[in-house]
Amino acid sequence: MNKQWVSNVLETLSTIGRTQSGGSSRLAFSAADLEARRYFTGLMKEAGLAVREDAFGNIIGRLEGTDSAAPAIGTGSHIDTVPEGGHFDGMVGSTASLAALMRLKERGPLRHPLELIIFQMEESSRFSLSTFGSKVMVGTADLDVARGQKDKEGLSLPEAMNHAGYDFEKLPGAIRHKGELAAFVEMHIEQSANLDEAGIPVGLVTAIAAPIRSHVVIEGKASHSGGTPMNNRKDALVCAADLVLAIRAVGNRFAKKEIVTTVGNLVVSPGAMNVVPGKVELWLDLRGTDRAVMDEAEAAVEKAAEGISAVHGLPIKFRRLVTDTPVRMTPRILEVLEESCRALELPVMRLVSGAGHDTMNVARIADVGMIFIRNKDGLSHHPEEHADIDDIMAGLDLLTETLYRLAK
Amino acid sequence: MNKQWVSNVLETLSTIGRTQSGGSSRLAFSAADLEARRYFTGLMKEAGLAVREDAFGNIIGRLEGTDSAAPAIGTGSHIDTVPEGGHFDGMVGSTASLAALMRLKERGPLRHPLELIIFQMEESSRFSLSTFGSKVMVGTADLDVARGQKDKEGLSLPEAMNHAGYDFEKLPGAIRHKGELAAFVEMHIEQSANLDEAGIPVGLVTAIAAPIRSHVVIEGKASHSGGTPMNNRKDALVCAADLVLAIRAVGNRFAKKEIVTTVGNLVVSPGAMNVVPGKVELWLDLRGTDRAVMDEAEAAVEKAAEGISAVHGLPIKFRRLVTDTPVRMTPRILEVLEESCRALELPVMRLVSGAGHDTMNVARIADVGMIFIRNKDGLSHHPEEHADIDDIMAGLDLLTETLYRLAK
Repeated sequence: MNKQWVSNVLETLSTIGRTQSGGSSRLAFSAADLEARRYFTGLMKEAGLAVREDAFGNIIGRLEGTDSAAPAIGTGSHIDTVPEGGHFDGMVGSTASLAALMRLKERGPLRHPLELIIFQMEESSRFSLSTFGSKVMVGTADLDVARGQKDKEGLSLPEAMNHAGYDFEKLPGAIRHKGELAAFVEMHIEQSANLDEAGIPVGLVTAIAAPIRSHVVIEGKASHSGGTPMNNRKDALVCAADLVLAIRAVGNRFAKKEIVTTVGNLVVSPGAMNVVPGKVELWLDLRGTDRAVMDEAEAAVEKAAEGISAVHGLPIKFRRLVTDTPVRMTPRILEVLEESCRALELPVMRLVSGAGHDTMNVARIADVGMIFIRNKDGLSHHPEEHADIDDIMAGLDLLTETLYRLAK
Repeated sequence: MNKQWVSNVLETLSTIGRTQSGGSSRLAFSAADLEARRYFTGLMKEAGLAVREDAFGNIIGRLEGTDSAAPAIGTGSHIDTVPEGGHFDGMVGSTASLAALMRLKERGPLRHPLELIIFQMEESSRFSLSTFGSKVMVGTADLDVARGQKDKEGLSLPEAMNHAGYDFEKLPGAIRHKGELAAFVEMHIEQSANLDEAGIPVGLVTAIAAPIRSHVVIEGKASHSGGTPMNNRKDALVCAADLVLAIRAVGNRFAKKEIVTTVGNLVVSPGAMNVVPGKVELWLDLRGTDRAVMDEAEAAVEKAAEGISAVHGLPIKFRRLVTDTPVRMTPRILEVLEESCRALELPVMRLVSGAGHDTMNVARIADVGMIFIRNKDGLSHHPEEHADIDDIMAGLDLLTETLYRLAK
């Protein structure tokens, strides 16, 4: 599979769910997502893979090996996007994984079976549930929480699945166990600028940082903006502004310990021009590579919030939505990746993934590794995110070689 | 018109557009607003007023006097509400104004005609245009700006008017001129706690503070929340948080000069949990009683914004939406109000209105005065706002006596 084939697949995917901004919106189970899944499933079948879907819509394509008792060697990524997302994110790894399997199929059968997995709903944008397809697959999905999650239109996850032809109640049937997959290697664009700044096309991930996510509610009191004196206000937005800055300060303070903190959304109620804000909801995303440091940073945020709450005289309530644990890549896979780099005369650079990936869940049932592709300016989840086709091809070579060495 | 009648009318209005929170939502030209208008028009007709509507839907009820050449003496308020508004706001004055005219009709004809005016769209919540009905009436409405204003559903003002049976293009026909109204007296609940704290049932307004309102846009850069290091972010929300606090600080600094500042709404784009905010829009409401001080406070906000913009490296753009000029009440009307208080043995308290009212526009074509009714805890634009019926009746007595003295 050459450069032209890879470019064409990425180009076709980029047209599905295209928005005015030039980005793509393919939220899980949306019409655009379903269209992209149909297109990609078609490619997998054309490539001669035996394709099935599990109960959540994870797409699994398989190529048998010579030893029917051997566990599979897996690869893959995702093709859903954030709203107004870019055209590389999970699509680069999905496409390269398929291309690698096609190349290996041409070379002739290996001992292990090969599997391509396209995970459903990697992005949390729609239901505030991240890397959910892989969680379902390894049996760590919290189905009770998931059942109640709703999108911005008020549609629940079970309802959205139902509209797309899936049955939420069948999810336990999608679980896979240790021994089915011997190894899993995911390729993905880097979502920051470490490779770009170092001038290196591909990187080997040593660990995946994980998020703690919380929903925060600040209760003030709505009152007339003209009639309420400054010293008599319970302005939830002013209180929230202090909290946003405190969250940022905790991120800055813990940055050297590989922590990042973000308030990605904030909603004001009632949200009228002439009403002092009575309530603010905001969403905190705190990530790190070491669970103890993450807990420390989270405690620092909550301590800051207590002080802010006292100063403003307004209650601030945190509700934990997601807690993921950071994951180290398997040393033996990292070694094979490094040997493959050397064989291909690619420079070796090890780095941490600040973003979560399905691989961190797959690590529960398989040895894992990840390849990052250089990302221009580290711009991610944005219509202008970009990875160079030559870098993608270098990653494809590395992925193919690595899968070969693992499966032979 | 006794206490029971006034209570009943307020009670009926409170049921129209009632929401789960116990408040009412009667945004201008909504189904609930139209229902309230039909109800109130019916009351006016039952009371024997000659009722007409102008092109914008301002309802005008007239009671002729003995001198057909004499200009009218006007009174009235509004019955539209903010989202989740309370049950007193403009409704108290509207109901008392009708009750006063009914009482004066019983007493027998006066020299001047009397007019009750229920202004349409006093609240800015739907189209970000405040006291717009009275602006249309006195010819100061900016129709070019108004034509383009849209509500949260994307419906423009001309479209909303059209759905309700009104024609935006006919608005110039609603203009009235100096000489038609000799005086206008509006009764309204106070929207802060000055009367409540002083323990006085009614107050005489000396001046109406006016708002300067601006739409503010902060452009950052959306990027992945996990993959973007803290020191490499262009987070529009963190920048906005600094601005919200700076706006609050300007309000605090100018509080003694009768300035209040509010950010009533703030919207984050793309607003996803795992995306660093790329853009924030917010709405600034700055009010004062002295135009020069307002300009000074606005300049202080913009200077602070320049500094914040420089620190964050993100552009902050202000677009002025509304500029109203504070209005002093007419001394001769204030004198009549004060004489009427003395005649009724009511205590006299003069105060400033922090909130805007239609009377500030009517001042362009008539002498004006305003009566405030004590408001429990100063809570306004909130389902729990409350004015005591005895205070409302004291205001009604004062309004009746004042209109009598002006019209006789």
